[in-house]
Amino acid sequence: MIGGGRNAFIGAVHRIAARIDGSAELVAGAFSSDAVRSRASGADLYLDPKRTYGNYEEMARAEARLPAGERLDFVVIVTPNHQHFRPAKLFLGAGFNVICDKPLALNLAEAKALQAIARRTGKVFVLTHNYSGNAMAKQARALVKAGKLGKVRKVIVEYSQGWLATPLEVGGHKQASWRTDPKRSGASGCIGDIGTHAAHLASYVTGLRITELCADLTTFVPGRRLEDDGSILLHFQGGAKGILHASQICIGDECALTLRIWGDKAGLEWQQERPEYLIVKYNDRPAERWRRGQSYLSTGARKLARVPAGCPEGFLEAFGNIYREAFRAIAAEVEGRPPPRDLDHPTIEDGVEGMLFVETVLRSAKHGARWEKMRR
Amino acid sequence: MIGGGRNAFIGAVHRIAARIDGSAELVAGAFSSDAVRSRASGADLYLDPKRTYGNYEEMARAEARLPAGERLDFVVIVTPNHQHFRPAKLFLGAGFNVICDKPLALNLAEAKALQAIARRTGKVFVLTHNYSGNAMAKQARALVKAGKLGKVRKVIVEYSQGWLATPLEVGGHKQASWRTDPKRSGASGCIGDIGTHAAHLASYVTGLRITELCADLTTFVPGRRLEDDGSILLHFQGGAKGILHASQICIGDECALTLRIWGDKAGLEWQQERPEYLIVKYNDRPAERWRRGQSYLSTGARKLARVPAGCPEGFLEAFGNIYREAFRAIAAEVEGRPPPRDLDHPTIEDGVEGMLFVETVLRSAKHGARWEKMRR
Amino acid sequence: MIGGGRNAFIGAVHRIAARIDGSAELVAGAFSSDAVRSRASGADLYLDPKRTYGNYEEMARAEARLPAGERLDFVVIVTPNHQHFRPAKLFLGAGFNVICDKPLALNLAEAKALQAIARRTGKVFVLTHNYSGNAMAKQARALVKAGKLGKVRKVIVEYSQGWLATPLEVGGHKQASWRTDPKRSGASGCIGDIGTHAAHLASYVTGLRITELCADLTTFVPGRRLEDDGSILLHFQGGAKGILHASQICIGDECALTLRIWGDKAGLEWQQERPEYLIVKYNDRPAERWRRGQSYLSTGARKLARVPAGCPEGFLEAFGNIYREAFRAIAAEVEGRPPPRDLDHPTIEDGVEGMLFVETVLRSAKHGARWEKMRR
Amino acid sequence: MIGGGRNAFIGAVHRIAARIDGSAELVAGAFSSDAVRSRASGADLYLDPKRTYGNYEEMARAEARLPAGERLDFVVIVTPNHQHFRPAKLFLGAGFNVICDKPLALNLAEAKALQAIARRTGKVFVLTHNYSGNAMAKQARALVKAGKLGKVRKVIVEYSQGWLATPLEVGGHKQASWRTDPKRSGASGCIGDIGTHAAHLASYVTGLRITELCADLTTFVPGRRLEDDGSILLHFQGGAKGILHASQICIGDECALTLRIWGDKAGLEWQQERPEYLIVKYNDRPAERWRRGQSYLSTGARKLARVPAGCPEGFLEAFGNIYREAFRAIAAEVEGRPPPRDLDHPTIEDGVEGMLFVETVLRSAKHGARWEKMRR
Repeated sequence: MIGGGRNAFIGAVHRIAARIDGSAELVAGAFSSDAVRSRASGADLYLDPKRTYGNYEEMARAEARLPAGERLDFVVIVTPNHQHFRPAKLFLGAGFNVICDKPLALNLAEAKALQAIARRTGKVFVLTHNYSGNAMAKQARALVKAGKLGKVRKVIVEYSQGWLATPLEVGGHKQASWRTDPKRSGASGCIGDIGTHAAHLASYVTGLRITELCADLTTFVPGRRLEDDGSILLHFQGGAKGILHASQICIGDECALTLRIWGDKAGLEWQQERPEYLIVKYNDRPAERWRRGQSYLSTGARKLARVPAGCPEGFLEAFGNIYREAFRAIAAEVEGRPPPRDLDHPTIEDGVEGMLFVETVLRSAKHGARWEKMRR
Repeated sequence: MIGGGRNAFIGAVHRIAARIDGSAELVAGAFSSDAVRSRASGADLYLDPKRTYGNYEEMARAEARLPAGERLDFVVIVTPNHQHFRPAKLFLGAGFNVICDKPLALNLAEAKALQAIARRTGKVFVLTHNYSGNAMAKQARALVKAGKLGKVRKVIVEYSQGWLATPLEVGGHKQASWRTDPKRSGASGCIGDIGTHAAHLASYVTGLRITELCADLTTFVPGRRLEDDGSILLHFQGGAKGILHASQICIGDECALTLRIWGDKAGLEWQQERPEYLIVKYNDRPAERWRRGQSYLSTGARKLARVPAGCPEGFLEAFGNIYREAFRAIAAEVEGRPPPRDLDHPTIEDGVEGMLFVETVLRSAKHGARWEKMRR
Repeated sequence: MIGGGRNAFIGAVHRIAARIDGSAELVAGAFSSDAVRSRASGADLYLDPKRTYGNYEEMARAEARLPAGERLDFVVIVTPNHQHFRPAKLFLGAGFNVICDKPLALNLAEAKALQAIARRTGKVFVLTHNYSGNAMAKQARALVKAGKLGKVRKVIVEYSQGWLATPLEVGGHKQASWRTDPKRSGASGCIGDIGTHAAHLASYVTGLRITELCADLTTFVPGRRLEDDGSILLHFQGGAKGILHASQICIGDECALTLRIWGDKAGLEWQQERPEYLIVKYNDRPAERWRRGQSYLSTGARKLARVPAGCPEGFLEAFGNIYREAFRAIAAEVEGRPPPRDLDHPTIEDGVEGMLFVETVLRSAKHGARWEKMRR
Repeated sequence: MIGGGRNAFIGAVHRIAARIDGSAELVAGAFSSDAVRSRASGADLYLDPKRTYGNYEEMARAEARLPAGERLDFVVIVTPNHQHFRPAKLFLGAGFNVICDKPLALNLAEAKALQAIARRTGKVFVLTHNYSGNAMAKQARALVKAGKLGKVRKVIVEYSQGWLATPLEVGGHKQASWRTDPKRSGASGCIGDIGTHAAHLASYVTGLRITELCADLTTFVPGRRLEDDGSILLHFQGGAKGILHASQICIGDECALTLRIWGDKAGLEWQQERPEYLIVKYNDRPAERWRRGQSYLSTGARKLARVPAGCPEGFLEAFGNIYREAFRAIAAEVEGRPPPRDLDHPTIEDGVEGMLFVETVLRSAKHGARWEKMRR
């Protein structure tokens, strides 16, 4: 693991997600760019001090020298955005499989560079757009794919948070500080942080890419250096229209990621904060409430159940589902088998798409919320 | 009553709303442009055949000749959009108070002409943006006004329906036919029909006017002549940003008019389909569920209760609340008193604003969803 | 109308319910046992002073003398419980149809006496168990009847209120005072007031009578003279088991009347405070949310819609539905036709059943919550 | 681990719960009474074959012989009910700490015997009434304890499932088979399986013990040997009244464990299937929706958050919370420290109370649902 030391947030989440099914073990890490802090974090995690490194470069060198059976099978990058590119490049180049937090990089150029390396090395690269790991998001995707909704017409996706409604970064709040700092977060705040999740989810479930967009970004909190709110109109392949709302100033909202899709036959709704339900709606018969863990779900959704319907699974289990797929991919790579045909995890391509989305949004906003094409 | 004959929808709603409190009586009408149908409708309603007229011109003439105590106190116009202007003009001109369904007219020019007449005659003109009659919409407005939300930052308003997801108008469905016919509905379909409700509600509750907008309109149903879906970005006075979604192709949605507002102190949510509740949200304490009929509400919201909390009031009662205020205004006018100072009903000014909204939306859409100012 | 004068609650509700569809007119009343108050109330309601009576005896005499076309078609009794019996008896005896608020009478003996008179005179007698007027309660009944749930196994019905959690009656609160006074309310408080609604609804929807019960009654508010809470186990015909919870001390609850039924094929849920929805649940497919106003409903439920799905109807509309059926029955009686075959309103038999329920509950509670049979 | 081999359900849950925080490791097990199956299960779990035992007696002997640093710190018993007593007795006697699934034993006599042993040995004994591990159940308890609800008056607790609505056991369904078999499940079916969870939760949150009860049990599924439904009236210490509904034939319900409590100041509601919310209700101000992960929660509830509010935690995390407390207790025991003063996990005393509840319920049901005291 790169990053995720003491007081980090997402590193701990990754560790739980990785171990929830008991199929992987944390054996090495460079948990901080501060070597003392990295070692203390390793000790907290009962790691072998010899494999707790002072920095990720040292780790890459040392691990690469280990024999195949002892060496890491994969590395997990959980640092802030500005520290994704270099370790990812280094470890990919050194022949390691990589699991990386989103967004993929600081900007599109970095993202494409990583993509090129990943393609060249053939290593597994998994991007943790964790919400797409929810069983009912997968069920939604399966329903769209099976034509249950008909042709998709309208998509509304929202990721609404309120925690940054005040200038927390001024008080030194760690999570707020790096997210509102252009050097560490990149040129986007809210959109890079959570808007990319929303955009990914919409495309994942509908199977449709965004073709052009019109983005109205706002920085509501005085003194903040990056936008904290965005209202975005979307056009998708095939003529579907969409709205994306992403905000971190919507007081009282926590992680209100919701997706609504209407086709010419039916509509559906999914909410991340009530992840076990999927509402499917019709004009001529009662709406249906589909539920995680039930026998009537698609194969892909059904196999994810760790506990029966009625025993709620949540954020960590969905994150764990991303890891499950990652481990299937990595196991095949390590064992020299071709990857399973039904692999279903976010890839480096999704990461490039995310950075393209961010750059297109920023370009639109810069020109007064003008329509801009996604320039693929 | 003008319009609202057999098979009409909104006329019956107006009649219930007018009589629910037992303070008005229907005494005359021109229920259809077809004299035979008008008379049959009058008979259905137990009206005096002498005051069931063959058309509204005849009615205006005859009623104007009646002595003051017998003459109509007000007229209600419930015809399709293209038949608002002429009867409104005629009755206002003849000295009658007018209650008119929305939108006010076919276009902005008509709306402004009516406004001029109304101002000149000094008669009461009430526009039935009925959703703003809900007690909890009024409570929401009171909370914003009292500063409970702080400065308003973001507004999301939606009116989502699905009943026009298929070409019902082809089969001769009466409600669908006129709403999708430019001659009867005006240059806009969905936006004029329900988008104006959404825009009015947002401005009513926040107390903020829309200053500019960017509208992406779509006609999803093949062959339809007016748009059936709109995604609109909004800018409000004072810097608030907004999103308006109005659609009639969102399968499974009925009258999903919802309003969410976030200020720099709190957020709120109201849903027309669950009209008795108002959710008020904070970052540092539990969200609150306010409820119609309770002692802690504002005076304006509290006085609207016909039945206690827990006995649901709905659409008809909210509509009746518009009529209550209309009757207070009309009673004052008839008795020659100044209007009550706390009158709270949608006016002809709201009607003009609505038509301005429609025209600005259409102009934006025509130019490829470009930003357009509301040219007041 | 008998009762329902100034400051009364339920009288105003009956008046709205009676006029909501425009098919009846209030023409006479004895609104209070205080003649002055009765006349003032009549004036408030714009009644002819000659038909505003000082008491109901006078009213019965005077109205009976009027010629057939002018005389009342029916009388509505909306007094507290202790004043149901005598006016009901008097008007039935004088040949009037009667609509009476629930519970039918002070006790079972009175109820049976009224039933005998009603049978003898053949007049229409409608008891306003208003909740059974909800479209979706009727839909629930239709589903059970059609076998959708299979054989009914378990029934949970609740009517939970909180408004009497403190001794409001001590402060002279009018509604609290008579409901907690054995002379005016009868030997039961909470059970007579709202428990009878719950029991009626359960039997109405399931089509099953209660056969025996075990009732644990409590008076939680110190000094109160009647029970304010009841927990009751139920046995139904055919082996179904049930639980009835009725309480007026459940703080924060308003009119939380809810019904859940499970059969051997499916389950259903209905909530009075969200009356437009009916949830139908299965083990092997998604739960369904049925909705008022939709095309897929049963004939009985569908014909009740005044406004489309999505325009919420509520308490007053449901109450109005009882009146609709009452008017169909009364119209037939007045016109000498046989009653419509599909009449669906609570009758005097339901009233007798309700009083039997109250007496059985009281007997059970008196013997330490012992099982008691409903002695029909 | 004792039990929890291939195809077992609850064993896998315990393993996730134990490892979710990374503070314990599974090192040994007797996963089945069938030695071959036990070893295969151990291999599935990557265990050292030397510590995968053919049966639990062998395991107890072998582990007891290991030196202190290598020996098990605790054992987890996840067998069906009839196999709790003997391994628990054996391991407690051999000086091991024990974590045991509920119900504690086959009957009250066994439970008391275990209690005596646990007291004598002083070892930690944790019973996994997992639902009480939910953060918001703890918050509910904290609110009651702090007097927020005032004196508790009424409690309604339900655990409603539908999966046994048909005779699954006939087809050899593993989970259904042992639960409906008196030899493996004990003299009670539904009540022992899920009713004990409901009773425990009610007492845990209110801090009140049940004093007497009246239980109406039913076996709805023909041929089933144990009851599959129960409706129970409860009396609590201090005069509170209650209702407990537990059923496995409520079609469409999954794990609908819900708790509602009303005091003389406020009411609260918690639902296991929406575990992150707690509704607190008042008569004179808006209801509040408290949420897991928020700053305003009690210390006990707040410290349980693994992920922020809005990232749903669920069943496994709540189960993990029981393990957290168990590990705090066990760590103290192993290190010879006194137990932490704020320990909060279900104990063997809760287990004895649960078996007393089951036996009292059965005695009541046997006498025709007669009131019976809990004979402590």
